[in-house]
Amino acid sequence: MTANQTPQLPLLPEPTLRRLPWYLAYVTTLRKDGVEFVSSTRIAREIHVDSSQIAKDLSFLDIKGKTRIGYEVAPLERKLREYLGFTRLHRAVMLGVGSLGSALINDSGLRKYGLEIVAGIDVDPAIVGQTINGIGIHAPEDLPGIVAATGASIGIVAVPVDAAGNTAREAVAAGIKALWNFTPRRLDVPEGVVVTNTSIYSHLAVMYNRLNHV
Amino acid sequence: MTANQTPQLPLLPEPTLRRLPWYLAYVTTLRKDGVEFVSSTRIAREIHVDSSQIAKDLSFLDIKGKTRIGYEVAPLERKLREYLGFTRLHRAVMLGVGSLGSALINDSGLRKYGLEIVAGIDVDPAIVGQTINGIGIHAPEDLPGIVAATGASIGIVAVPVDAAGNTAREAVAAGIKALWNFTPRRLDVPEGVVVTNTSIYSHLAVMYNRLNHV
Repeated sequence: MTANQTPQLPLLPEPTLRRLPWYLAYVTTLRKDGVEFVSSTRIAREIHVDSSQIAKDLSFLDIKGKTRIGYEVAPLERKLREYLGFTRLHRAVMLGVGSLGSALINDSGLRKYGLEIVAGIDVDPAIVGQTINGIGIHAPEDLPGIVAATGASIGIVAVPVDAAGNTAREAVAAGIKALWNFTPRRLDVPEGVVVTNTSIYSHLAVMYNRLNHV
Repeated sequence: MTANQTPQLPLLPEPTLRRLPWYLAYVTTLRKDGVEFVSSTRIAREIHVDSSQIAKDLSFLDIKGKTRIGYEVAPLERKLREYLGFTRLHRAVMLGVGSLGSALINDSGLRKYGLEIVAGIDVDPAIVGQTINGIGIHAPEDLPGIVAATGASIGIVAVPVDAAGNTAREAVAAGIKALWNFTPRRLDVPEGVVVTNTSIYSHLAVMYNRLNHV
Protein backbone atom coordinates (compact mmCIF):
# COMPACT_ATOMS: atom_id res chain seq x y z
CA MET A 1 0.00 0.00 0.00
CA THR A 2 1.35 3.46 -0.78
CA ALA A 3 0.32 6.86 0.46
CA ASN A 4 -1.53 7.47 -2.79
CA GLN A 5 -3.90 4.57 -2.20
CA THR A 6 -4.71 5.66 1.36
CA PRO A 7 -7.35 8.30 2.01
CA GLN A 8 -5.66 11.48 3.23
CA LEU A 9 -5.90 11.74 7.02
CA PRO A 10 -6.41 15.19 8.56
CA LEU A 11 -3.51 17.14 10.04
CA LEU A 12 -4.02 16.68 13.79
CA PRO A 13 -2.73 18.94 16.60
CA GLU A 14 0.40 17.49 18.21
CA PRO A 15 -1.07 17.34 21.76
CA THR A 16 -3.99 15.31 20.36
CA LEU A 17 -1.60 12.98 18.54
CA ARG A 18 0.30 12.48 21.76
CA ARG A 19 -2.83 11.55 23.71
CA LEU A 20 -4.46 9.27 21.12
CA PRO A 21 -2.00 6.38 21.80
CA TRP A 22 -3.05 6.44 25.47
CA TYR A 23 -6.68 6.00 24.45
CA LEU A 24 -5.69 3.29 21.98
CA ALA A 25 -3.78 1.38 24.67
CA TYR A 26 -6.80 1.51 26.96
CA VAL A 27 -9.46 0.56 24.40
CA THR A 28 -7.27 -2.30 23.16
CA THR A 29 -7.27 -3.67 26.71
CA LEU A 30 -11.05 -3.19 26.91
CA ARG A 31 -11.59 -4.98 23.59
CA LYS A 32 -9.44 -7.91 24.73
CA ASP A 33 -11.51 -8.03 27.93
CA GLY A 34 -14.69 -8.25 25.84
CA VAL A 35 -15.99 -4.78 26.72
CA GLU A 36 -18.25 -3.40 23.93
CA PHE A 37 -18.84 0.25 24.85
CA VAL A 38 -16.87 2.87 26.73
CA SER A 39 -17.75 6.42 27.74
CA SER A 40 -15.31 9.34 27.63
CA THR A 41 -15.88 9.61 31.40
CA ARG A 42 -14.58 6.09 31.89
CA ILE A 43 -11.56 6.71 29.66
CA ALA A 44 -10.98 9.94 31.59
CA ARG A 45 -10.98 8.12 34.94
CA GLU A 46 -8.47 5.58 33.68
CA ILE A 47 -6.12 7.86 31.71
CA HIS A 48 -6.37 11.02 33.86
CA VAL A 49 -7.30 13.27 30.96
CA ASP A 50 -10.36 15.51 31.22
CA SER A 51 -13.41 13.84 29.59
CA SER A 52 -14.25 16.94 27.52
CA GLN A 53 -10.70 16.89 26.18
CA ILE A 54 -11.12 13.22 25.26
CA ALA A 55 -14.40 13.93 23.45
CA LYS A 56 -12.68 16.79 21.59
CA ASP A 57 -9.69 14.62 20.64
CA LEU A 58 -11.93 11.81 19.43
CA SER A 59 -14.09 14.21 17.39
CA PHE A 60 -11.12 14.52 14.99
CA LEU A 61 -11.53 10.82 14.21
CA ASP A 62 -14.88 11.14 12.54
CA ILE A 63 -16.41 8.86 15.15
CA LYS A 64 -19.32 9.72 17.43
CA GLY A 65 -20.17 8.42 20.87
CA LYS A 66 -23.79 7.57 21.67
CA THR A 67 -25.57 9.30 24.54
CA ARG A 68 -25.46 7.21 27.73
CA ILE A 69 -23.66 4.32 25.96
CA GLY A 70 -20.48 5.97 24.78
CA TYR A 71 -18.15 4.79 22.05
CA GLU A 72 -18.25 1.34 20.48
CA VAL A 73 -14.89 -0.16 21.49
CA ALA A 74 -13.90 -2.18 18.41
CA PRO A 75 -14.52 0.58 15.80
CA LEU A 76 -12.91 3.13 18.11
CA GLU A 77 -9.77 0.97 18.35
CA ARG A 78 -9.69 0.58 14.54
CA LYS A 79 -10.13 4.31 13.93
CA LEU A 80 -7.45 5.18 16.47
CA ARG A 81 -4.96 2.80 14.85
CA GLU A 82 -5.81 4.17 11.41
CA TYR A 83 -5.55 7.86 12.35
CA LEU A 84 -2.31 7.23 14.23
CA GLY A 85 -0.86 5.76 11.04
CA PHE A 86 -0.27 2.34 12.59
CA THR A 87 -2.31 0.42 10.00
CA ARG A 88 0.05 1.07 7.10
CA LEU A 89 3.78 0.47 6.86
CA HIS A 90 6.11 3.47 6.53
CA ARG A 91 9.52 2.56 5.17
CA ALA A 92 12.55 3.75 7.09
CA VAL A 93 16.32 3.56 6.85
CA MET A 94 18.39 3.18 10.03
CA LEU A 95 21.15 5.79 9.89
CA GLY A 96 23.89 4.46 12.16
CA VAL A 97 23.99 0.85 13.21
CA GLY A 98 25.81 1.09 16.54
CA SER A 99 24.35 -0.21 19.77
CA LEU A 100 21.12 1.83 19.63
CA GLY A 101 20.64 1.43 15.87
CA SER A 102 21.08 -2.32 15.93
CA ALA A 103 18.85 -2.54 19.01
CA LEU A 104 16.08 -0.72 17.12
CA ILE A 105 16.56 -2.93 14.04
CA ASN A 106 16.11 -5.91 16.36
CA ASP A 107 12.91 -4.46 17.84
CA SER A 108 10.46 -6.13 15.50
CA GLY A 109 7.63 -4.64 17.59
CA LEU A 110 7.98 -1.37 15.64
CA ARG A 111 6.23 -3.02 12.66
CA LYS A 112 3.01 -3.18 14.68
CA TYR A 113 3.23 0.59 14.90
CA GLY A 114 3.63 1.05 11.17
CA LEU A 115 7.42 1.25 10.90
CA GLU A 116 9.28 -1.00 8.47
CA ILE A 117 13.06 -0.66 8.56
CA VAL A 118 14.29 -1.62 5.08
CA ALA A 119 18.05 -0.99 5.41
CA GLY A 120 20.80 0.10 7.74
CA ILE A 121 23.56 2.58 6.85
CA ASP A 122 26.90 2.73 8.62
CA VAL A 123 30.38 4.12 7.96
CA ASP A 124 32.09 1.12 9.58
CA PRO A 125 33.40 -1.18 6.80
CA ALA A 126 33.47 -4.03 9.34
CA ILE A 127 29.65 -4.19 9.47
CA VAL A 128 28.76 -3.02 5.94
CA GLY A 129 27.58 -6.08 4.02
CA GLN A 130 26.28 -7.84 7.12
CA THR A 131 22.62 -8.29 8.04
CA ILE A 132 20.87 -7.74 11.38
CA ASN A 133 17.44 -9.30 11.88
CA GLY A 134 17.36 -9.82 8.12
CA ILE A 135 18.11 -6.15 7.34
CA GLY A 136 21.18 -5.41 5.18
CA ILE A 137 23.77 -2.87 6.34
CA HIS A 138 25.10 -0.59 3.58
CA ALA A 139 27.67 2.17 3.13
CA PRO A 140 26.55 5.85 3.23
CA GLU A 141 27.14 6.27 -0.53
CA ASP A 142 24.42 3.67 -1.16
CA LEU A 143 21.75 5.75 0.59
CA PRO A 144 20.35 7.64 -2.45
CA GLY A 145 19.99 4.37 -4.36
CA ILE A 146 18.28 2.66 -1.42
CA VAL A 147 15.85 5.55 -0.95
CA ALA A 148 15.03 5.52 -4.67
CA ALA A 149 14.61 1.73 -4.81
CA THR A 150 12.57 1.27 -1.64
CA GLY A 151 10.66 4.55 -1.47
CA ALA A 152 11.79 4.93 2.13
CA SER A 153 10.64 8.30 3.45
CA ILE A 154 11.96 8.11 7.04
CA GLY A 155 15.54 8.25 8.32
CA ILE A 156 16.14 7.11 11.90
CA VAL A 157 19.12 9.08 13.20
CA ALA A 158 21.13 6.87 15.56
CA VAL A 159 24.66 7.94 14.68
CA PRO A 160 27.14 9.39 17.22
CA VAL A 161 26.08 12.90 18.10
CA ASP A 162 29.04 14.51 16.25
CA ALA A 163 27.87 12.93 13.01
CA ALA A 164 24.18 13.82 13.38
CA GLY A 165 24.29 17.11 11.45
CA ASN A 166 26.04 15.66 8.40
CA THR A 167 23.93 12.53 8.49
CA ALA A 168 20.75 14.61 8.45
CA ARG A 169 21.99 16.68 5.50
CA GLU A 170 22.97 13.59 3.51
CA ALA A 171 19.65 11.89 4.28
CA VAL A 172 17.66 14.91 3.08
CA ALA A 173 19.82 15.13 -0.06
CA ALA A 174 19.09 11.44 -0.68
CA GLY A 175 15.34 12.11 -0.64
CA ILE A 176 14.42 11.32 2.99
CA LYS A 177 11.34 13.33 4.05
CA ALA A 178 11.27 12.77 7.82
CA LEU A 179 13.98 12.30 10.44
CA TRP A 180 13.35 10.42 13.66
CA ASN A 181 16.20 11.81 15.75
CA PHE A 182 17.50 9.80 18.71
CA THR A 183 20.59 11.99 19.20
CA PRO A 184 20.70 15.00 21.53
CA ARG A 185 21.76 17.13 18.53
CA ARG A 186 19.22 19.68 17.20
CA LEU A 187 18.89 19.04 13.47
CA ASP A 188 18.71 21.81 10.86
CA VAL A 189 16.58 20.75 7.94
CA PRO A 190 15.03 22.52 4.95
CA GLU A 191 11.40 23.56 5.27
CA GLY A 192 9.05 20.70 4.58
CA VAL A 193 11.28 18.05 6.16
CA VAL A 194 9.77 16.62 9.34
CA VAL A 195 11.94 16.17 12.44
CA THR A 196 10.72 14.19 15.46
CA ASN A 197 13.03 14.03 18.46
CA THR A 198 13.02 11.13 20.88
CA SER A 199 15.34 12.42 23.56
CA ILE A 200 15.91 9.33 25.65
CA TYR A 201 18.94 10.89 27.37
CA SER A 202 16.89 13.93 28.38
CA HIS A 203 14.30 11.58 29.83
CA LEU A 204 17.02 9.78 31.80
CA ALA A 205 18.34 13.12 33.09
CA VAL A 206 14.87 14.17 34.27
CA MET A 207 14.41 10.78 35.98
CA TYR A 208 17.80 10.88 37.74
CA ASN A 209 17.22 14.43 38.94
CA ARG A 210 13.78 13.62 40.37
CA LEU A 211 15.09 10.38 41.90
CA ASN A 212 17.72 12.38 43.80
CA HIS A 213 14.94 14.34 45.46
CA VAL A 214 12.42 11.63 46.34
CA MET B 1 29.52 4.96 44.21
CA THR B 2 26.16 5.35 45.93
CA ALA B 3 23.85 8.32 46.17
CA ASN B 4 25.10 8.96 49.70
CA GLN B 5 28.65 9.54 48.55
CA THR B 6 27.61 11.98 45.83
CA PRO B 7 26.99 15.62 46.68
CA GLN B 8 23.27 16.34 46.37
CA LEU B 9 22.51 18.00 43.03
CA PRO B 10 19.81 20.69 42.95
CA LEU B 11 16.29 19.95 41.74
CA LEU B 12 16.26 21.45 38.24
CA PRO B 13 13.21 22.58 36.23
CA GLU B 14 12.19 19.96 33.65
CA PRO B 15 12.53 22.32 30.63
CA THR B 16 16.11 23.08 31.73
CA LEU B 17 16.87 19.37 32.13
CA ARG B 18 15.53 18.78 28.63
CA ARG B 19 17.76 21.47 27.11
CA LEU B 20 20.99 20.65 28.98
CA PRO B 21 21.68 17.50 26.87
CA TRP B 22 21.57 19.69 23.72
CA TYR B 23 24.26 21.95 25.18
CA LEU B 24 26.25 18.90 26.29
CA ALA B 25 26.12 17.40 22.79
CA TYR B 26 27.37 20.65 21.29
CA VAL B 27 30.17 21.35 23.80
CA THR B 28 31.36 17.73 23.51
CA THR B 29 31.78 18.31 19.78
CA LEU B 30 33.60 21.60 20.46
CA ARG B 31 35.96 19.93 22.96
CA LYS B 32 36.76 17.16 20.47
CA ASP B 33 37.46 19.86 17.89
CA GLY B 34 39.92 21.51 20.32
CA VAL B 35 37.78 24.59 21.00
CA GLU B 36 38.56 26.06 24.47
CA PHE B 37 35.89 28.72 25.02
CA VAL B 38 32.31 29.15 23.87
CA SER B 39 29.86 32.00 24.37
CA SER B 40 26.16 31.55 25.06
CA THR B 41 25.57 33.48 21.81
CA ARG B 42 27.49 30.85 19.86
CA ILE B 43 25.63 28.00 21.57
CA ALA B 44 22.39 29.86 20.83
CA ARG B 45 23.19 30.13 17.13
CA GLU B 46 23.93 26.42 16.92
CA ILE B 47 21.12 25.04 19.10
CA HIS B 48 18.39 27.58 18.28
CA VAL B 49 17.71 28.43 21.92
CA ASP B 50 17.71 32.07 23.04
CA SER B 51 21.12 33.03 24.52
CA SER B 52 19.57 34.54 27.66
CA GLN B 53 17.76 31.23 28.21
CA ILE B 54 21.05 29.37 27.83
CA ALA B 55 22.76 31.66 30.35
CA LYS B 56 19.87 31.09 32.75
CA ASP B 57 19.96 27.30 32.30
CA LEU B 58 23.73 27.21 32.82
CA SER B 59 23.51 29.41 35.94
CA PHE B 60 21.93 26.37 37.70
CA LEU B 61 25.22 24.54 37.20
CA ASP B 62 27.27 26.75 39.44
CA ILE B 63 29.47 27.71 36.53
CA LYS B 64 30.08 31.23 35.26
CA GLY B 65 31.01 32.47 31.81
CA LYS B 66 33.65 35.18 31.48
CA THR B 67 32.80 38.48 29.78
CA ARG B 68 33.79 38.48 26.11
CA ILE B 69 35.33 34.98 26.37
CA GLY B 70 32.37 32.88 27.42
CA TYR B 71 32.43 29.49 29.07
CA GLU B 72 35.48 27.24 29.31
CA VAL B 73 34.48 24.21 27.22
CA ALA B 74 36.08 21.31 29.15
CA PRO B 75 34.75 22.25 32.63
CA LEU B 76 31.37 23.10 31.12
CA GLU B 77 31.18 19.64 29.56
CA ARG B 78 32.13 18.00 32.89
CA LYS B 79 29.57 20.03 34.85
CA LEU B 80 26.82 19.27 32.33
CA ARG B 81 27.52 15.52 32.52
CA GLU B 82 27.59 15.66 36.31
CA TYR B 83 24.38 17.68 36.70
CA LEU B 84 22.59 15.48 34.17
CA GLY B 85 23.48 12.45 36.30
CA PHE B 86 25.52 10.82 33.54
CA THR B 87 28.72 10.52 35.61
CA ARG B 88 27.37 7.96 38.06
CA LEU B 89 25.66 4.65 37.38
CA HIS B 90 21.99 4.23 38.29
CA ARG B 91 20.94 0.60 38.60
CA ALA B 92 17.87 -0.49 36.71
CA VAL B 93 15.82 -3.64 36.17
CA MET B 94 14.31 -4.32 32.73
CA LEU B 95 10.65 -5.21 33.26
CA GLY B 96 9.65 -7.24 30.22
CA VAL B 97 12.24 -8.78 27.95
CA GLY B 98 10.36 -8.89 24.64
CA SER B 99 11.65 -7.25 21.49
CA LEU B 100 11.98 -3.73 22.95
CA GLY B 101 13.27 -4.91 26.34
CA SER B 102 15.95 -7.12 24.86
CA ALA B 103 16.87 -4.37 22.38
CA LEU B 104 17.43 -1.96 25.28
CA ILE B 105 19.44 -4.58 27.22
CA ASN B 106 21.63 -4.89 24.12
CA ASP B 107 22.09 -1.10 23.88
CA SER B 108 25.30 -0.86 25.88
CA GLY B 109 25.41 2.86 25.02
CA LEU B 110 23.00 3.53 27.90
CA ARG B 111 25.88 3.02 30.39
CA LYS B 112 27.54 6.18 29.06
CA TYR B 113 24.40 8.01 30.15
CA GLY B 114 24.51 6.58 33.67
CA LEU B 115 22.15 3.62 33.27
CA GLU B 116 23.27 0.15 34.36
CA ILE B 117 20.74 -2.60 33.70
CA VAL B 118 21.41 -5.30 36.32
CA ALA B 119 18.64 -7.82 35.55
CA GLY B 120 15.72 -8.60 33.29
CA ILE B 121 12.31 -9.82 34.48
CA ASP B 122 9.89 -11.73 32.29
CA VAL B 123 6.87 -14.01 32.72
CA ASP B 124 7.92 -16.30 29.86
CA PRO B 125 9.46 -19.48 31.34
CA ALA B 126 11.20 -20.09 27.99
CA ILE B 127 13.54 -17.12 28.52
CA VAL B 128 13.82 -17.08 32.34
CA GLY B 129 17.27 -18.38 33.23
CA GLN B 130 18.83 -17.14 30.01
CA THR B 131 21.18 -14.18 29.68
CA ILE B 132 21.18 -11.33 27.14
CA ASN B 133 24.33 -9.24 26.76
CA GLY B 134 25.48 -10.80 30.05
CA ILE B 135 22.30 -9.79 31.92
CA GLY B 136 20.31 -12.60 33.59
CA ILE B 137 16.57 -12.94 32.96
CA HIS B 138 14.50 -13.81 36.05
CA ALA B 139 10.90 -14.61 36.97
CA PRO B 140 8.66 -11.83 38.38
CA GLU B 141 8.67 -13.40 41.86
CA ASP B 142 12.43 -12.80 42.04
CA LEU B 143 12.04 -9.02 41.66
CA PRO B 144 11.94 -8.06 45.37
CA GLY B 145 15.08 -10.12 46.03
CA ILE B 146 16.89 -8.59 43.06
CA VAL B 147 15.97 -5.04 44.10
CA ALA B 148 17.17 -5.75 47.65
CA ALA B 149 20.41 -7.39 46.51
CA THR B 150 21.40 -4.88 43.82
CA GLY B 151 19.92 -1.66 45.19
CA ALA B 152 18.30 -1.06 41.80
CA SER B 153 16.08 2.02 42.01
CA ILE B 154 14.79 2.16 38.42
CA GLY B 155 12.34 -0.13 36.63
CA ILE B 156 12.20 0.10 32.83
CA VAL B 157 8.65 -0.78 31.79
CA ALA B 158 8.77 -2.63 28.47
CA VAL B 159 5.99 -5.18 29.00
CA PRO B 160 2.94 -5.49 26.70
CA VAL B 161 0.63 -2.56 27.36
CA ASP B 162 -2.02 -4.72 29.07
CA ALA B 163 0.50 -5.77 31.70
CA ALA B 164 1.92 -2.29 32.37
CA GLY B 165 -0.39 -1.39 35.29
CA ASN B 166 0.30 -4.59 37.23
CA THR B 167 3.99 -4.47 36.43
CA ALA B 168 4.24 -0.94 37.80
CA ARG B 169 2.42 -1.94 41.00
CA GLU B 170 4.65 -4.97 41.55
CA ALA B 171 7.80 -2.95 40.86
CA VAL B 172 6.83 -0.28 43.40
CA ALA B 173 5.94 -2.98 45.94
CA ALA B 174 9.39 -4.50 45.35
CA GLY B 175 11.07 -1.20 46.24
CA ILE B 176 11.57 0.41 42.82
CA LYS B 177 11.59 4.24 43.13
CA ALA B 178 11.40 5.34 39.48
CA LEU B 179 9.69 3.91 36.41
CA TRP B 180 10.92 4.61 32.89
CA ASN B 181 7.77 3.82 30.96
CA PHE B 182 8.03 2.83 27.30
CA THR B 183 4.41 1.68 27.05
CA PRO B 184 1.56 3.97 25.96
CA ARG B 185 -0.19 3.14 29.26
CA ARG B 186 -0.45 5.95 31.86
CA LEU B 187 0.93 4.53 35.12
CA ASP B 188 -0.67 5.15 38.53
CA VAL B 189 1.98 5.26 41.22
CA PRO B 190 2.05 6.31 44.88
CA GLU B 191 3.32 9.81 45.63
CA GLY B 192 7.09 9.98 45.67
CA VAL B 193 7.55 7.42 42.89
CA VAL B 194 8.99 9.01 39.74
CA VAL B 195 7.48 8.20 36.34
CA THR B 196 9.19 9.24 33.10
CA ASN B 197 7.40 8.40 29.87
CA THR B 198 9.23 7.79 26.61
CA SER B 199 6.35 7.58 24.19
CA ILE B 200 8.05 6.32 21.07
CA TYR B 201 4.72 5.35 19.50
CA SER B 202 3.36 8.87 20.03
CA HIS B 203 6.46 10.23 18.34
CA LEU B 204 5.90 7.88 15.40
CA ALA B 205 2.26 9.00 15.16
CA VAL B 206 3.26 12.67 15.08
CA MET B 207 5.87 11.94 12.40
CA TYR B 208 3.46 9.93 10.21
CA ASN B 209 0.80 12.62 10.46
CA ARG B 210 3.21 15.43 9.51
CA LEU B 211 4.69 13.29 6.72
CA ASN B 212 1.22 12.92 5.21
CA HIS B 213 1.00 16.68 4.90
CA VAL B 214 4.44 17.57 3.58
